[in-house]
Amino acid sequence: MGESLNGMKRTIMCGQLRETDVDKVVTVMGWVQRRRNLGGLIFVDLRDRTGIVQVVFGEEINKEAFEKANPIRSEYVIAVSGKVVLRESPNSQLPTGQIEIKAESLRILSESETPPIYIMENLDASEAIRLKYRYLDLRRPDMQRRIMIRHKTAKVVRDFMDENGFLEIETPMLIKSTPEGARDYLVPSRNFPGKFYALPQSPQIYKQLLMISGYDRYFQIVRCFRDEDLRANRQPEFTQIDIEMSFVDIDDVIELNERLIQKIFKEIKGIDVQIPFMRMPYKEAIEKYGSDKPDLRFGMEIIDIKDVVKSSSFKVFSDVVASGGEIRGINAKGCADFGRKEIDRLTEYVKTYGAKGIAWIAIKENEIKSSFAKFMTEDELKAIIDRMDGKVGDLLLIIADKSKTAFASLGALRLELGRKLNLIGPDNNEYKFLWVTEFPLVEFDEEEGRYVAVHHPFTAPMDEDIKYLETDIGKVRAKAYDIVLNGEEIGGGSIRIHDTKLQERMFNAIGLDIEKAWAKFGYLLEAFKYGPPPHGGLAYGFDRLIMFLTETDNIKDVIAFPKNQNAADPMSNSPSEVDKKQLEELGIDIVEQK
Amino acid sequence: MGESLNGMKRTIMCGQLRETDVDKVVTVMGWVQRRRNLGGLIFVDLRDRTGIVQVVFGEEINKEAFEKANPIRSEYVIAVSGKVVLRESPNSQLPTGQIEIKAESLRILSESETPPIYIMENLDASEAIRLKYRYLDLRRPDMQRRIMIRHKTAKVVRDFMDENGFLEIETPMLIKSTPEGARDYLVPSRNFPGKFYALPQSPQIYKQLLMISGYDRYFQIVRCFRDEDLRANRQPEFTQIDIEMSFVDIDDVIELNERLIQKIFKEIKGIDVQIPFMRMPYKEAIEKYGSDKPDLRFGMEIIDIKDVVKSSSFKVFSDVVASGGEIRGINAKGCADFGRKEIDRLTEYVKTYGAKGIAWIAIKENEIKSSFAKFMTEDELKAIIDRMDGKVGDLLLIIADKSKTAFASLGALRLELGRKLNLIGPDNNEYKFLWVTEFPLVEFDEEEGRYVAVHHPFTAPMDEDIKYLETDIGKVRAKAYDIVLNGEEIGGGSIRIHDTKLQERMFNAIGLDIEKAWAKFGYLLEAFKYGPPPHGGLAYGFDRLIMFLTETDNIKDVIAFPKNQNAADPMSNSPSEVDKKQLEELGIDIVEQK
Repeated sequence: MGESLNGMKRTIMCGQLRETDVDKVVTVMGWVQRRRNLGGLIFVDLRDRTGIVQVVFGEEINKEAFEKANPIRSEYVIAVSGKVVLRESPNSQLPTGQIEIKAESLRILSESETPPIYIMENLDASEAIRLKYRYLDLRRPDMQRRIMIRHKTAKVVRDFMDENGFLEIETPMLIKSTPEGARDYLVPSRNFPGKFYALPQSPQIYKQLLMISGYDRYFQIVRCFRDEDLRANRQPEFTQIDIEMSFVDIDDVIELNERLIQKIFKEIKGIDVQIPFMRMPYKEAIEKYGSDKPDLRFGMEIIDIKDVVKSSSFKVFSDVVASGGEIRGINAKGCADFGRKEIDRLTEYVKTYGAKGIAWIAIKENEIKSSFAKFMTEDELKAIIDRMDGKVGDLLLIIADKSKTAFASLGALRLELGRKLNLIGPDNNEYKFLWVTEFPLVEFDEEEGRYVAVHHPFTAPMDEDIKYLETDIGKVRAKAYDIVLNGEEIGGGSIRIHDTKLQERMFNAIGLDIEKAWAKFGYLLEAFKYGPPPHGGLAYGFDRLIMFLTETDNIKDVIAFPKNQNAADPMSNSPSEVDKKQLEELGIDIVEQK
Repeated sequence: MGESLNGMKRTIMCGQLRETDVDKVVTVMGWVQRRRNLGGLIFVDLRDRTGIVQVVFGEEINKEAFEKANPIRSEYVIAVSGKVVLRESPNSQLPTGQIEIKAESLRILSESETPPIYIMENLDASEAIRLKYRYLDLRRPDMQRRIMIRHKTAKVVRDFMDENGFLEIETPMLIKSTPEGARDYLVPSRNFPGKFYALPQSPQIYKQLLMISGYDRYFQIVRCFRDEDLRANRQPEFTQIDIEMSFVDIDDVIELNERLIQKIFKEIKGIDVQIPFMRMPYKEAIEKYGSDKPDLRFGMEIIDIKDVVKSSSFKVFSDVVASGGEIRGINAKGCADFGRKEIDRLTEYVKTYGAKGIAWIAIKENEIKSSFAKFMTEDELKAIIDRMDGKVGDLLLIIADKSKTAFASLGALRLELGRKLNLIGPDNNEYKFLWVTEFPLVEFDEEEGRYVAVHHPFTAPMDEDIKYLETDIGKVRAKAYDIVLNGEEIGGGSIRIHDTKLQERMFNAIGLDIEKAWAKFGYLLEAFKYGPPPHGGLAYGFDRLIMFLTETDNIKDVIAFPKNQNAADPMSNSPSEVDKKQLEELGIDIVEQK
């Protein structure tokens, strides 16, 4: 049975004890990691969030404590007082391994049944059981480290933003539903039966309103919600670092955020990140890396060979040339000895991205093998090899397809080769930051049959492209930017339109009629009548950033109480049924499912 | 039309300019507070969140800027560059009043229609219009000061908690609904049609789980939700500073929080709050002040006179004595000259608290007047006056009623007198902190016909009262504490039960059967099987705290985007109707209202 503290005070945490504490009498409290009997003594490894310390109970040390220690088992919570002494056999693996505590008194604060999962690093248990017993999973030291890094990162962000004149301003969670973007979580209103609030997908409109209100520099670490089918590493509720600034253009936002990132990586990982980061226009990113979030930890850039093969008689190439597609390739350095099987595997892989196949050239010591040699003259082959800088030992992989497919397939192929060749992966602790800029303002939405905003319709076009709004909108680049780390987007934002007339031209250009726009964003448009400052901002996926900082690829590892793939919580059995009476008050009813 | 910044950079904020900046060329950006033409010059008061600076346009200063300035009106957004000079006629009211900027160039960044509310301090506009145009209301300097103090307070709290080893850990917003306490906001689940999440009323269970998980010291500044009918100064979504600690008892929680409060008041208001704060058991608070949140800025304590009148023949008193009620009074010092009308008003006032009336004695220079003199002997009257320390000029106000009514009425009467006599009120900047402790563990719920937990069923009983759990539960005091400031509860908390067996005794004692308890809190009870540490905590109403710090009595003044009394937002027109399709996906339907 659990005893009360009754005035007993902890004097130090377990993991803090060192050789310098020898001869002090200390009181520690924590969980029993392990208990062993050895040579008439009882050894207990006692754990708190700072680490583990060894406690020794013995008849000679203190008989009462020794006897009281007898029932102790794993995960019991105890308080121990005693003198710190040097260990006879030190453990150099533990920071506290030089010392131990000779227990002079013991209080058993609470008992524990045998836990259903082991409280240990890198537990290999199913996700289902880890989520069901999340309070035990959260006891594991690797989980605790990640949660502590999350706390510390939030603190570093807040300190930095405060020092730079940003105000953290809370925006509402019960907001208006807008049928734009992802699916909203809805909240029925009791005062207005049949009406609903939505939970925010982001505070986008509120942060723009705060700029119009003159707050100048806003940020918030804020919960956001999306009711979408959960892909891996998505959660229905997630956290953003949300930032907005007034009287700025792209460079101001980028400069601030580079210093923020630099500070985070210095404080959390002790790494000096060099700034400014590289910037790359969207077009270049696609053409060189087949991706708008290129992983720059390795090269293997995509090479355009269309002009050297355009008059080839190889039908695969000539058809693509005729239909205006792309013929591009990657030089997989040193991979000439890939077997047929491996090349087949890569071919299957790119097919999932829509490519029809891979044309390849393997440059071996004494011969050049190629899937299409027989359709080419030796000169033509040589021209390709020259263009792709092919050397002995290289494997040239070529895809000819319509533009979108070619880039997507080559981008994916490049990453697959990077992984295969261990150029990227869990052991690669390089951090390659990149700003991708000059995104297209709009993209053609096949479903809607019109152009739609790539980011949101408040994103400003680049000054020099405004003139194409009405004549060639597909050509207009946006003042939008993503920050990419090792091939993952960790944040993105834009400069917003602050001119009502330009906003109207934008709505017109994407064929969104003004009335519809007013129905959706009326209060923001109304606000724009009263002196909006130029403004722009950025938002980071905070969970994703913490994943990088804690080197995990599982978003559930960085959230204390995440949901599972069905957006459910197996621990609390949520969502759950509610009283009929509650629904009556809300004026809603459950539709019987067939 | 709004111009773009095109590389133009702000060099300083308006309110930061001082005499020491004279002769510097600066660029400021902001909103036009006021524009006047005077002696061939155009004067503009330019405003940003730091303050106002005067800008002068003149043909002699810069002709182009002067001409461009002509259309400028209130709330236009402009960027101005020019030299800082001493003013000919300084304005000592403004921090920037010694200087002005001679405008050498101007860019009009955006225009403004005439705003529907004035952008000025202490605006006297209806709440409805302030909420509808919240983005303009938020431009007003007094609103901006409050929002900035809110930011700064959150920062001070986070710094303090971090320095004291607390981890800020985010808890979920989509949680399990529990039919306990206030009404939950519900969120329909799409994956499980007919099932619902709830938005948290507080992270209570999660913070206890985090203690069980060994995080030791947790805090969070966190949004909470209650779907209740809105009394004044309540909001459907509000913010808590939520705190929980392991291996502590009452004194540890109190000591930490006193230092936190001291730090906040020092940093935000420059006030040295003396600690430790006074502590008062609940019983004493009720008996002396008729309230569990006494305002200690003035005395006027309640005095028990039952024993001196117990044998009186005054029926009002003797009846109450016979039925076991209370006869207590307040000495309203110096109020003997209150007229009949004023006493009638106070009588009506206490009737709203259930009292049947007030018996009074006015001690005038040459006579003693009393509403019940004719029922009393002179000695009896004198005994009352002596007990109540009545002096010439005093008015003694007595209430005889059943206990609860007597205390509630006297508590209310005391506050009403305090306000009337200006002992408390908006001009009184004293801060009187108090811990109210030793709350009863349970109270009798007439509706449920049983005892229920005053706080929540996890609140620990005081060690010395545990023995009464089964025999006399009404007598058991809890390890619960509220922090009271000037008569308002700003926070409260308790030490929790950490012993499964004690928890079961508690459930039994309040007649909550174990099965029901498991259905409600099963996962917390399950967690308690695996070594819960002793723990306790506290939560502050953050909005309420900011109200004190910004000296406003309106909660909407400290929340950027609050809801109105119907929990609606007139700005965005939320809550609103949603697409039929969205409801179908959620498996719910709207019930037609009659």
